[in-house]
Amino acid sequence: SPTVATRLHDRINNKIELDSPKVATMDKMAAGDKKVYCRCWLSGTFPLCDASHVAHNKETGDNVGPLIVSVDKAEE
Amino acid sequence: SPTVATRLHDRINNKIELDSPKVATMDKMAAGDKKVYCRCWLSGTFPLCDASHVAHNKETGDNVGPLIVSVDKAEE
Ligand code: FES
Ligand code: FES
Repeated sequence: SPTVATRLHDRINNKIELDSPKVATMDKMAAGDKKVYCRCWLSGTFPLCDASHVAHNKETGDNVGPLIVSVDKAEE
Repeated sequence: SPTVATRLHDRINNKIELDSPKVATMDKMAAGDKKVYCRCWLSGTFPLCDASHVAHNKETGDNVGPLIVSVDKAEE
């Protein structure tokens, strides 16, 4: 059953590393890589996106989606 | 003044590209780059982080932070 929130602006992460004071993720990429990173805080493969944002958007009317980063291949 | 939300799980983006059905961001990085990407949906420099997550975390008790991606320099 729904709960009542009394703040206009609430926390957005209710799942990922809740014991951490701040979830800042460091990642490295290499030439030729392409990665899809989660920005909805619901992915089961965080920090990568597993498409959990799709159900979240449908349920809440939100419009969030991933960050897709690519690195060109090194020149030969 | 605060509003009352009736869903346990609410939308997390109330600022960025609200006219877009889904905000998926494509970005390219190159050898030697380091970028700090926003995952709180509050940055004034979205998709990059401008440290807006700090005030958000303080106000809401949240623990969100950016994604920091680096690409090694090309070998000489
Ligand atoms: S699962 Fe979080 S953005 Fe896709
Ligand atoms: S401003 Fe959004 S994560 Fe830093």
